[in-house]
Amino acid sequence: MLAITAILCEAAVLLTAAVDAAPTPKPRTMADVLAASTPGDWRPLDPESTLYLELRGGRVVVELASAFATRHVANIRTLVRERYFDGLSIVRAQDNYVVQWGDPDGKRPLGKARASLAAELARPAAGLRFTLLAERDAYAPEVGFVDGLPAARDPATGQAWLAHCYGMLGVGRDDAADSGSGAELYVVIGHAPRHLDRNVTVAGRVVSGIELLSTLPRGTGAMGFYEKPEERVPLRSVRLAADVPVAERSSLELLRTDTATFAALVESRRNRTESWFLTPTGHIDLCNVPLPVRARR
Amino acid sequence: MLAITAILCEAAVLLTAAVDAAPTPKPRTMADVLAASTPGDWRPLDPESTLYLELRGGRVVVELASAFATRHVANIRTLVRERYFDGLSIVRAQDNYVVQWGDPDGKRPLGKARASLAAELARPAAGLRFTLLAERDAYAPEVGFVDGLPAARDPATGQAWLAHCYGMLGVGRDDAADSGSGAELYVVIGHAPRHLDRNVTVAGRVVSGIELLSTLPRGTGAMGFYEKPEERVPLRSVRLAADVPVAERSSLELLRTDTATFAALVESRRNRTESWFLTPTGHIDLCNVPLPVRARR
Repeated sequence: MLAITAILCEAAVLLTAAVDAAPTPKPRTMADVLAASTPGDWRPLDPESTLYLELRGGRVVVELASAFATRHVANIRTLVRERYFDGLSIVRAQDNYVVQWGDPDGKRPLGKARASLAAELARPAAGLRFTLLAERDAYAPEVGFVDGLPAARDPATGQAWLAHCYGMLGVGRDDAADSGSGAELYVVIGHAPRHLDRNVTVAGRVVSGIELLSTLPRGTGAMGFYEKPEERVPLRSVRLAADVPVAERSSLELLRTDTATFAALVESRRNRTESWFLTPTGHIDLCNVPLPVRARR
Repeated sequence: MLAITAILCEAAVLLTAAVDAAPTPKPRTMADVLAASTPGDWRPLDPESTLYLELRGGRVVVELASAFATRHVANIRTLVRERYFDGLSIVRAQDNYVVQWGDPDGKRPLGKARASLAAELARPAAGLRFTLLAERDAYAPEVGFVDGLPAARDPATGQAWLAHCYGMLGVGRDDAADSGSGAELYVVIGHAPRHLDRNVTVAGRVVSGIELLSTLPRGTGAMGFYEKPEERVPLRSVRLAADVPVAERSSLELLRTDTATFAALVESRRNRTESWFLTPTGHIDLCNVPLPVRARR
């Protein structure tokens, strides 16, 4: 387990300076950290856990989170492979909250997919490689990162769960906890609605194309639903990357969150050293930590 | 000073139930709290501190924060009354961050307005009516609300400052702390970039029409700047409400944040009792507390 704290990082820098008898190294910006990263700091997307939402404006790429939402991810795969989502729509865009898609009429057959699933709100923290963030958090005793996803943890219960940061993918449901299936999904497009944590299954994260969702016109109905069918935004198709010809895949890689490079990135954002900043902040919120994505090299 | 804590609110409810020997009252939703509010819980906007940004799509209403940015608000008033902004453009829209407007060429004369001002990053907490939020915060020792604005406070220094929550208005500047004037302004359209707190002057908050900014196409240049002049979004005009005929003003009122009603609202969001929620969260982040606005009654 890697603890990310300002104290640790500063100590490491001082130690290097003393041993080398060199001047104190210039504090690093995020650009510096990324420029110095090695190929091993990055990981590819698993095509079986990568969704492509094809909209008129382009492609949204989502990484699914099997470790936290095993049943829901499996059900989403089934729905996608049945082409369940093709021709459905984005039906809701609520400002500073979520964009949501699914079948507005609820009539499309689910085929072999389950119509409802027991919610996956949290899981045992044991077995997860949890990169702890030192900061205080309004909602959880501990926060950090698991496999590139923002997460929270409670040592008292031994449970861990994903955090509703910007870009996270969740499973829409009705009032009953087990009423979600993955046939209705949403993405966070505003300030992290962390009160949804452990109230709804989180199933992944948008890693590319979020602006295609965040700029959609807001619905004028209750909770941001579009009032007229013609306002809805068509989903041309939703595919698993594994089912798309290699030449048509988005070739992306993500910065691993269990590395010294990621720890340095967090520190570079906790205390910004770009010339514009007047004073180091000394803190960072879980959902303000960048999770870099780049073209695969 | 009003301390908002779950403990206080629960104690009050229990006390009432015991005195009245009635059943424990049903926990209240935000809708319940607002429905039970009285006229005194609301306050009008001061026309001298209210900006109207007129865009093609409609009007954005901003309340200026004189108590925290006295010099900048005065300079913005001067610029607006000189019609400095009319015909200028929104020049930047960076996803999950800010929308920014000003003079892309930097050539328009500032008239009697100052070209630069000493930054107003924090001020003495003394003299402010600070409604304290009980929650932990990643960035500040204490957080809460002042005159309807999210704010932070440090008892060790006696300083208070505004927090960069969604919808807050900030003063763009170059590297020098005193290089901002109010001629370039930005609004937060993503997860609260609280690392900007005390690095830049915060001058107000959007109270209506934020979706006209948050849905703008994102710029494809560095930091979300529009690369081509034709991508920029025209500002038809920017006016103080006081300079607009009464019949053309947006007649809005805002929930006061120094009342028992507001304390109840915070509690209704800290522990959501709507039937959809499975478990009470018990916590709320500063920037997740709604700051209700309604048509004036």
